[in-house]
Amino acid sequence: FPSKQPHVQTTIFTKMSALALEHGALNLSQGFPGFDCAPALQELLQHYSKGYNQYAPMAGVPVFRQSLAEKTSSFYGIPVDADSEVTIVSGATEALFAAVHCCVSPGDEVIMFDPSYDAYDPIVRLAGGIPIHIPLKASNHFAIDWSTLASKITHRTRAIMVNSPHNPTGAVWSMADLDAFAEIVKGTNILIISDEVYEHIVFDGAQHASVLLHPELRKRSFVCGSFGKTYHITGWKIGSCIAPAYLTAEFRKLHQWVTFSSATPLQYALADYLKEPAHYLSLSDFYQKKRDLFASQFAGSAWKVLPSAGSFFQCLDYSAITSEKDIDLADRLTREIKVASIPVSVFYETDPGDKILRFCFAKEDEVLLEAAKRLVQLA
Amino acid sequence: FPSKQPHVQTTIFTKMSALALEHGALNLSQGFPGFDCAPALQELLQHYSKGYNQYAPMAGVPVFRQSLAEKTSSFYGIPVDADSEVTIVSGATEALFAAVHCCVSPGDEVIMFDPSYDAYDPIVRLAGGIPIHIPLKASNHFAIDWSTLASKITHRTRAIMVNSPHNPTGAVWSMADLDAFAEIVKGTNILIISDEVYEHIVFDGAQHASVLLHPELRKRSFVCGSFGKTYHITGWKIGSCIAPAYLTAEFRKLHQWVTFSSATPLQYALADYLKEPAHYLSLSDFYQKKRDLFASQFAGSAWKVLPSAGSFFQCLDYSAITSEKDIDLADRLTREIKVASIPVSVFYETDPGDKILRFCFAKEDEVLLEAAKRLVQLA
Ligand SMILES: CSCCC(=O)C(=O)O
Ligand SMILES: CSCCC(=O)C(=O)O
Repeated sequence: FPSKQPHVQTTIFTKMSALALEHGALNLSQGFPGFDCAPALQELLQHYSKGYNQYAPMAGVPVFRQSLAEKTSSFYGIPVDADSEVTIVSGATEALFAAVHCCVSPGDEVIMFDPSYDAYDPIVRLAGGIPIHIPLKASNHFAIDWSTLASKITHRTRAIMVNSPHNPTGAVWSMADLDAFAEIVKGTNILIISDEVYEHIVFDGAQHASVLLHPELRKRSFVCGSFGKTYHITGWKIGSCIAPAYLTAEFRKLHQWVTFSSATPLQYALADYLKEPAHYLSLSDFYQKKRDLFASQFAGSAWKVLPSAGSFFQCLDYSAITSEKDIDLADRLTREIKVASIPVSVFYETDPGDKILRFCFAKEDEVLLEAAKRLVQLA
Repeated sequence: FPSKQPHVQTTIFTKMSALALEHGALNLSQGFPGFDCAPALQELLQHYSKGYNQYAPMAGVPVFRQSLAEKTSSFYGIPVDADSEVTIVSGATEALFAAVHCCVSPGDEVIMFDPSYDAYDPIVRLAGGIPIHIPLKASNHFAIDWSTLASKITHRTRAIMVNSPHNPTGAVWSMADLDAFAEIVKGTNILIISDEVYEHIVFDGAQHASVLLHPELRKRSFVCGSFGKTYHITGWKIGSCIAPAYLTAEFRKLHQWVTFSSATPLQYALADYLKEPAHYLSLSDFYQKKRDLFASQFAGSAWKVLPSAGSFFQCLDYSAITSEKDIDLADRLTREIKVASIPVSVFYETDPGDKILRFCFAKEDEVLLEAAKRLVQLA
């Protein structure tokens, strides 16, 4: 039986979470909250556990799509049509998969920036597409060099995958980035797949620069979102795709063959919960406190704290501590001091040799303090 | 933007359910129960709404996989390994999608029998595979002619998709069918994708002839299952794939890029609920009564009741009533007498011109009686 993906291993998230469990380590590897969602959301799920257990419509429960359209519309100050522009899917991973597979044909090139979330490359390859990786430099705060992007575009470029706030680095785009990006794609028929699952986690007073805000980008974008990161429910696996009607029509054709529809009781619970903006409006503050608490523990240590402008990840440079490869160090820290993290090199096509680990700070403060203590003692 | 699926329309299920809603029709089209799941299962979901809201492991919650392995093992009297042979996915549609996409490469042929569930053909095409349709005849009770199957096999045949109990016809395989099938695939490297979502709905005292029961078949099969049909929770979108370890490894590589994992609270609720066999052991009786109630209403009418040996579908032949095409009649019945059904011709690559509609009898008895009354009055 010839494997279609002979080189593919279990994802780094599965691997590190399993290793953390095996060694009883503090798990700052896989990106999920170490605390539960709001009791109000739990109560909504309890309510909808009765009478809401049959198939949702393929595109999503109408009141949920409406609720998401209104939230998105009021948050970004733009019109969003619930019927023709919003689709509910089984997590942002499915959104990315269906977006790529509805538009990428064999031989098409898809540009992505490294470090890139580990699913991007295989999702493109499974569609027969050719991933074109543009490496970003830690020394340059992982900023995008727009002229490099322009130079990688060919007549075969079908789509560009972008991600802000960025996983794993925490880099975020500014409005100027949107303008620079728009200048490059203007006049082409290149599509954009924009992973914005951390849209509500942006620090230091900045606003999330969604591609939805820029007409030139929006008209060609699949915006992939997740309720998991915003509402502390990564296990619900409910995500969304917001795209212009002509792209949404193609997206749904894929979605209907991939999962057809998503869990009904979870959709109804979220439909109600989305109407209350207090939670997501305070989320950036909530996580900024955690970022600051965690980062401040490394002052005066040999760990170098890299900037984290959004997401719930903090990257630490350990080049002053050891010359080990990051995958080896992540493994050793999990076993020896029982702190699990993610090595950033796995998100590159070509390992740049950086000495950086990613830590998820969506954890209880005590956990962050204890993890930092163990890491500092090591250094 | 060149559509990858220019001819693909919204699925027939979406279309007919929407039409039923629009016209206030009794909806016997899309296959889902018209009643809720057991209160005990609702209570389990309520219980697990608290504290079980983060990512499940990629392959599924371990206690749930264990529970499913034990249930399958005891029901079929065979060993099933929870760790290496069971994967939990977001509905049987995802199971079918990931099974096909993990083994079918561009140019590979995949054989399927018409009428075939509407997702099979596009799922194969999206993988670059070539669907080979073998039409079955209503006049022959949709039985498979094994010599025709044998004649369609080429060196490019990668997989065969099978489905018993069969949607839309209600035909079921016997143990002799398994033997005949095994004779054909023996000695080849052809894989089997077996859609067994109606495994617990088999009538008249028959036992479900799962490919799991036949070693020659089992060793090359992805068995796609659904909790939706068995537990009256089509809206939970939780399914499974049971396959030998070497196939499960490939299946999970796909699953991890398609949805990554499935809803955690729903998995925990099912893990507990599966331990109680009373529900699924009585399911065939429960639905046989509904089949008999519905079918008996057509005695003496011009509707011809076709055999339904399993699933929750009843096909009715209307050739003595009108010469309309089935898609036209299904549309008209929804608008005029407000009974929605599914035209069987849409499940064929080449319309055989049969005059058959499919009715879902997973509905309250009153609904079945009222729908039958309206249909009989028409005839
Ligand atoms: C789908 S598991 C990975 C979670 C995540 O987004 C991350 O850790 O980066
Ligand atoms: C995924 S919606 C279709 C439900 C079903 O299996 C059917 O009606 O045949």
